[in-house]
Amino acid sequence: MNEIRVFCPATIANISCGFDVLGVALDSVGDEMVVRKIPEKGIRITKLEGQDLPKETERNVAGVAGLTLLEASGYDGGFEIEIYKKIKAGSGIGSSAASSSGAVWAMNELLGRPFSKIDLVRFAMEGERLASAVAHADNVAPALYGGFTLVRSYDPLDVVSIPNPPELYATVIHPQIEVKTSDSRSVLRTKITLAQGIKQWGNVGGLIAGLFTNDYDLIGRSLEDHIVEPIRSILIPGFDNVKSEALNAGALGCGISGSGPSIFAFCKGETIAKKVSESMKEVYQDIGIDHDVHVSKINTNGVRAI
Amino acid sequence: MNEIRVFCPATIANISCGFDVLGVALDSVGDEMVVRKIPEKGIRITKLEGQDLPKETERNVAGVAGLTLLEASGYDGGFEIEIYKKIKAGSGIGSSAASSSGAVWAMNELLGRPFSKIDLVRFAMEGERLASAVAHADNVAPALYGGFTLVRSYDPLDVVSIPNPPELYATVIHPQIEVKTSDSRSVLRTKITLAQGIKQWGNVGGLIAGLFTNDYDLIGRSLEDHIVEPIRSILIPGFDNVKSEALNAGALGCGISGSGPSIFAFCKGETIAKKVSESMKEVYQDIGIDHDVHVSKINTNGVRAI
Repeated sequence: MNEIRVFCPATIANISCGFDVLGVALDSVGDEMVVRKIPEKGIRITKLEGQDLPKETERNVAGVAGLTLLEASGYDGGFEIEIYKKIKAGSGIGSSAASSSGAVWAMNELLGRPFSKIDLVRFAMEGERLASAVAHADNVAPALYGGFTLVRSYDPLDVVSIPNPPELYATVIHPQIEVKTSDSRSVLRTKITLAQGIKQWGNVGGLIAGLFTNDYDLIGRSLEDHIVEPIRSILIPGFDNVKSEALNAGALGCGISGSGPSIFAFCKGETIAKKVSESMKEVYQDIGIDHDVHVSKINTNGVRAI
Repeated sequence: MNEIRVFCPATIANISCGFDVLGVALDSVGDEMVVRKIPEKGIRITKLEGQDLPKETERNVAGVAGLTLLEASGYDGGFEIEIYKKIKAGSGIGSSAASSSGAVWAMNELLGRPFSKIDLVRFAMEGERLASAVAHADNVAPALYGGFTLVRSYDPLDVVSIPNPPELYATVIHPQIEVKTSDSRSVLRTKITLAQGIKQWGNVGGLIAGLFTNDYDLIGRSLEDHIVEPIRSILIPGFDNVKSEALNAGALGCGISGSGPSIFAFCKGETIAKKVSESMKEVYQDIGIDHDVHVSKINTNGVRAI
């Protein structure tokens, strides 16, 4: 096999109480990439459609992640990459992670799978380092493992797959305003109270337990964030209304996707998820902010060949 | 049925990363109580053997917890309680919780089970309020539910049962020094860094996932506490040695039980648990501190009739 076309899922990171540790892959929104082996060493981005992003290998997240894999592989040749972006950069649903993860997953396939999933996470994290100056794993882990993932630890890197109930759907709305990841980081306080921490890890425990036992109510009760959401949501116009409308329409819970501005809701079943998406849209229609909305099953495979 | 004899298990609370939220019930150490219906209103502690504790109803945790249940029940009569303490008060393995939980569980049986488990937790928490001025649930919840329990939230009270791998054993050593719960509370800092919090809730997620999937290694990796243990362990002579000896002997993880001074270790299988108990004992033999040691399966029932 010299060429492969892959689907690279969008992902929600920072799932409410799971700030910096919990992410999930989506099924109905993602990029496509074509990766092919070439005899020349190195990596070339030969096409980049859908978004205005750098094509130079060293300035492109897929290029940088791919170079890390290439170096580790000892492979003599190189790769050409075509990227068909459907995820908007800066939307908060793992645009850079999709590209980084797709590139390294595809290359690993073409080389006969010399690397494990955790290796691929490490390579893809280098793409994240380029995109946001921090080599975080909370989008690339779900993009590569599929489903929900917990990044238990960075040193050593430890990624845990968490199952999900079959009827769990995600609704994501992207209000088209710019919130830079760096700004979104800088508003955070470096200290929290022990009492806030206890609430947060109680909720993380509840969310994980709910995902294991298909307990939708427990999932909903655990989707609380007393630490980051109250601060970051100030950067997202309409957040409080979107959240309350989503909950009124039957969402289990609702929060900021990644570092925003996208807002996600989890729902039981597609019917409710669609109703929730309508209620979220109405808020931005009323305010007059352009927006995209996605309703998606949980993607339990991660990046896949198509 | 007018009389019941019950076993009231010891419990480990504050399980490493699960400070204030995660507890577990033990099988081989606990109190016994006899509770019988009497026609007179109120509660009388007619016997209290094994520990020097107050017998006056209003000053006894079983009495106070029982009175709370009695009032809620509308029952015309009352109860007599005999308490045979085997858990040492102040040892850090839920001595007061065993008495409170045993009393309310037994009374609920004698009244034909009018109350749910979560009701019983609420009643037993009043005994904890008497014992330590805080109505905490992290010992009474595992004492009543059995196994591992997560107190996800206090407002509203939300207790989640967590399964455990069949070969999981606990080893607990109690060095006979006094560490008051109130002192142990007062050394804690009221603020933590966000980075510490993220590590802690990553570990809570990993521990819960490991318990659900019988992944002993993941359980071991997740038994970390970067927040409370470094501070509280200073109050427990020999703690660092006990911990390193336990891990060397094959324990999955090791930490402070409750607010100390007892130290627990989790192990895979009874053979390792016994070996770990020997290595922990040696530390206190060398220092010359009296100690008790318990090796126990996880108690998956909670309080039970015997």
